[in-house]
Formats: sequence, structure tokens, C-alpha cells
Amino acid sequence: MRIAQIAPLFESVPPRAYGGTERAVHWLTEALVGLGHDVTLFATGDSRTSARLVPMRAQAERFQRNFEVNNAPYARMIELVRRQANDFDVLHFHIDFHPFSVFSRQDTPFVTTLHGRLDQPWVPAIYDLFPQVPLISISDRQRVPMPHLNFAATIPHGMPRDTLRPVPCSQDYFAFLGRISPEKGIEAAIRIARACGVKLRIAAKIGEEDAPYHEAVVAPLLDGEHVEYIGEIDDAQKPAFLSGARALLFPIDWPEPFGLVMIEAMACGCPIVAFRKGSVPEVIEEGLTGYVVDTVDEAIAACARLGAIDRTMVRTRFEQRWTAERMAQDHVALYERLIAARA
Amino acid sequence: MRIAQIAPLFESVPPRAYGGTERAVHWLTEALVGLGHDVTLFATGDSRTSARLVPMRAQAERFQRNFEVNNAPYARMIELVRRQANDFDVLHFHIDFHPFSVFSRQDTPFVTTLHGRLDQPWVPAIYDLFPQVPLISISDRQRVPMPHLNFAATIPHGMPRDTLRPVPCSQDYFAFLGRISPEKGIEAAIRIARACGVKLRIAAKIGEEDAPYHEAVVAPLLDGEHVEYIGEIDDAQKPAFLSGARALLFPIDWPEPFGLVMIEAMACGCPIVAFRKGSVPEVIEEGLTGYVVDTVDEAIAACARLGAIDRTMVRTRFEQRWTAERMAQDHVALYERLIAARA
Repeated sequence: MRIAQIAPLFESVPPRAYGGTERAVHWLTEALVGLGHDVTLFATGDSRTSARLVPMRAQAERFQRNFEVNNAPYARMIELVRRQANDFDVLHFHIDFHPFSVFSRQDTPFVTTLHGRLDQPWVPAIYDLFPQVPLISISDRQRVPMPHLNFAATIPHGMPRDTLRPVPCSQDYFAFLGRISPEKGIEAAIRIARACGVKLRIAAKIGEEDAPYHEAVVAPLLDGEHVEYIGEIDDAQKPAFLSGARALLFPIDWPEPFGLVMIEAMACGCPIVAFRKGSVPEVIEEGLTGYVVDTVDEAIAACARLGAIDRTMVRTRFEQRWTAERMAQDHVALYERLIAARA
Repeated sequence: MRIAQIAPLFESVPPRAYGGTERAVHWLTEALVGLGHDVTLFATGDSRTSARLVPMRAQAERFQRNFEVNNAPYARMIELVRRQANDFDVLHFHIDFHPFSVFSRQDTPFVTTLHGRLDQPWVPAIYDLFPQVPLISISDRQRVPMPHLNFAATIPHGMPRDTLRPVPCSQDYFAFLGRISPEKGIEAAIRIARACGVKLRIAAKIGEEDAPYHEAVVAPLLDGEHVEYIGEIDDAQKPAFLSGARALLFPIDWPEPFGLVMIEAMACGCPIVAFRKGSVPEVIEEGLTGYVVDTVDEAIAACARLGAIDRTMVRTRFEQRWTAERMAQDHVALYERLIAARA
């Protein structure tokens, strides 16, 4: 199948550091190539891929305060993909609503994975114009604010089977992995760990917009002994970090559309104690790969039951449900449906 | 003629304060209505117009640090205009490259006025994809960085004949009108006025991004006596401000695409002493409505010759060359050409 993957242009594919969307696009692209498909990736020029790369902007540029600096590369990408649309069997976009006007008016089947939350104030005015364009949600929960859109499938993310594997070690701390921000639940994680008398190790990015929050709220809670901040970590560091953790604490306070760190933990055999928000109940299998709770107190109680979880089974469930190969197969099945519907 | 005007969405039409593009769109729209045309204005909901207003966003929102917050209203506007395109004889866009992909692939003639400078680094990658879409430049100089594009006409701005008129008064200062920023030449204006021994009165906006420059560089030069800052002024205040000025100083240091303040000055009979940048030599008639110079010293010398300029003739030239009616007639002639070419 001739497949075009059209990625965002603020980060490379894969991203140099933090960037869930670009990681998911990367893994999907590689897995589709692995399944033998003819894949073209439209992305920034500093992307790395086994697919054919069509560079859309010399390199990734984070958001800048000039509308056109950000928008012109997207407008250019839309036009260039449109000109080549007939060369593909299916076009798969990862850039929100940007393709809708142009690609609703041409013949090649196209689909858009929504990577963000749909409860933002700007969402209905644009998405409600396009009730017919096929969308992929990355969790069922993600659809809730806009259930009337044309969701063709929920396809959760998956990661390559061998990117992260368990390493043998003892577990003497809880892990927090991701981004320092109120919605990611860092304060709750610290409270849970303290109440359990277990050390919390924090591997997280501190973004520009979150720096004031970190300085004011989080930094004073770090003592290096019971609560330790170890900085941002890469894939090479994650197996040891997650294999050594009794659990990943994921007490989020926002409707997380997917939450890649949960499957990263599972890949390392690490169970998850998470708040019931967003995709969490769809990703965690209660008592099998972790516990889904509603409060800090319930999280503390759940942490006392972590011994009941078999870490080997956590890894097994990762292999059964959360690989990039499964994700790619799900997509191919959907692409085939879209192509058949158009024919 | 059934004409659609499609305006930017960061400011209302007309703008509440500073905003050259939105002022020009407003004047053009009103003048086209005045000529008896059936005009529809796509703009923010807080716009005021004699045309049919189609609100595209509840109200003007200045640029915000979320790509989608800015972009979704534009994407929505493109789609809604496209759906109504067949109801118009011509579509006139004022939103840069945004319409190109969609409207290159439909039948109603469309044209885009470029309101900004074309020497920005992001410009070629997007504009060079569309060498065939018809463009309007607002000065011949504006085209220079991208001369190979399909410029259908240069149509300079015009303003309503009676928005600003001369008021009788003596002239005992120089005027600076616009925005405090290095490129607008405020420092040179202060030097010129000081050397002439004439007071400089500054009516200008201090934008968020220019506040540090103002604090560090301009504020220390204000003494209230020889150099006075009077704040941002509106149209009701401009006749007195410009009628009382011996000249408008316009020693710009950037390729100004048009420069509305020059015709505002002329409307009040006020001559202009300006640097030879951007549109300046196309707007000022040497010795008739002002002087075009290359240096501060030449500007000082020119100021000594202001007595040779007849302020009544400055106003007359405004009426002959720079009214919104002339601007609207020029546009109608172009629209007719575009419609004939398509037929």
C-alpha cells in the first residue's frame, strides 16, 4: 500500500526530546515500513526514517511569535501533499484540522489522527464544519467532547517491542516520568510517595511555560533524598529507571488523550498507579498492569497492593496490546476500509 | 458587482486603534459600497461596515501563543468563503497566502492584496509555490524581493475624502505619527527636530514588543518641552495634530509597503519629510507634497525649504491621488479584468 504520513512541523520525527505526537508518528511509520508498505513521510528535514522522507521545512522549529513563520510551512505542506495526492492510496495526517478544506475536495482517501484534547474552546467552531471527515481517536475518552464527529476508529498508540525492555534489578522507589506541570500530577505523586514512605524519583522536562510553577511549587518539595529530580531522560535511560521502580505514579489531573509513558512503563514490566482521567482506564488493566484510582488516599492504598502484580505479566500484556506492530496493523485495516469505501 | 472582502482576524474592521491593514480594508469596503456594489465583508464580529458582515470570529483577538487559537478561525473562514464562492463575482483576500491552495482549485476569480513586506525569510517557500495566483501590491517597491510573482496591479491605499481635513491654525512643531520602533525612525526624527530648533510632538503607539526599546532609548530623549510624547491619538485628534505641524517627519528605516500616515498628513495639508525607503518615493511628490531625502542632514536641509510648499496644494494632491474612491475605482477596474480573463 502506498501510504503518506503527514507529521507536525514543530518537532522532528522522532523528536529530539519530549514530543508524544512525533514519537507515535515515528513508531507508526517504522512499523508500516516493517510490514512491507511503501511509506512516505512528510516532516521536518531533520527527521530520521526508514520511509521516504519529503522535507517540509529545513528543521524543526518550536512555536514562534509570528503567525506566518509557523503557518507558512503548514500551508506549503498542504499544497505539496495535495499535488502528490494521486500518487498515494491513502493520506494519513497528524496536523489537526489543517488538511480538511483542501482534502475534502479531492479523491484520495485521507484520515486524520487527533493527538490533542478536544475540550478546548477553539475546537467546535472548526471541527463542526467537517462532520464527515474521517478521524482517528487515540482513546475512546478523547472523543467525549465531540462525539458527533466522524470517528472511523480508535487506535491507541503502540511502541516498538524492543525499544524498552525490563532489566534485572530491585525496586526501591516510585517513578514519575514526563513533564513537570500541574496537570501531570507531580504534587499528588509527591504526596503519595511520602505517605508510602517510598522515595520518588522524577525524570521530567521542565518546559518554558512550566518553569514558574516548578520554581514556586515543585522545587521547594525536592529534597534529593525522599524526592529526587533527575532531569529529562532519554530512551537509553528509561529501562533502568522504570525497571527499578515499584510503580510509575501517574496521578494526572487532565483528560490525557493517550499517555505514552504508561506503555513505556509496561514495556519495562513496571506497573502503574494512575488517576481515572482521560485514557487511563482504557490503557491500564486493573490488577493486571496497575491500579486505576480516584484519590490520593486510594492511590496510597493501591501502592500497598503492588506485590499482587506480576511484573512479567505486565511486560506480556505490553507485548500483546501495546506494540507498534499492533498499531500499524490496526491502521492498515482502517486504511483498507477507507479505500474500499471510496472505491 | 458581487464582491467579497476577506479581512484578517487579529483586528476588527476598522481597527479599534492602530492597524493599517484593517483601516485600508475598511475604507475600500465602504468606498465599494459607495460606488453601488454588493459587498460582503468576512471579518471579526465586532467589525463595523456598510457592507453585509459575515462574522468569522466573535471579536478581534490579538496574536496568542497557541497556534490553533490563531489558525482555527482562518481555516474556518477559508472553508466558509469557499462554500459561498459561487455567490460572488470576485473574491478579494487580505490574508496573505492562506487562500491559495483552496481557491486555486475553484472557479470564482480571486485576488489577494499583500499588505506586508516580502523580504521576510519565510516568504519564498510558500509564495513560490503559487506563481500564477493574482496579487495586488500596495506599492511598486513592495514587489522588489519577489518580482516574479503574478502581480496584477499596484493599487496604493486611499482614505475617505473627509475623514481628515485641514483645520486653520499656525504651525509651530514637527509631527511624528505611528509607532515607537527603531524601523519607524523615531530617533532620527528627534535628531532632525533638535537640529532645526523645532519642537517634535510624538503621537504614537508603544507596542508590547517595542516597550523595552522605548524605555531604553526613546524615553530618555523625551523632555516634554523640545520632544513631547502625547500618546496614541485617534482620527478625531489627527486634524488638529497634523494641521498644526510644519511637517510630518517620516525618517523610516525599513521597506514600508505603503505608509498610511503619509496620506493622512496630506489630507490635513501637512507636507512630509521622509527617507527614501519602501513606498516613499511613490507617495510623496518632490517639492509638491514633501521632500524625499537619504540622510538626517538632508532632512534638516529639506525642513528649511518647507516654506516653498503650498499646504493647499498638498490637500489638493490628496484629493486627486489618495482618496478611497480612487482606490475603489482602481479595484473595480482590476476585478473586471480578472472576471473577463476567467470568462
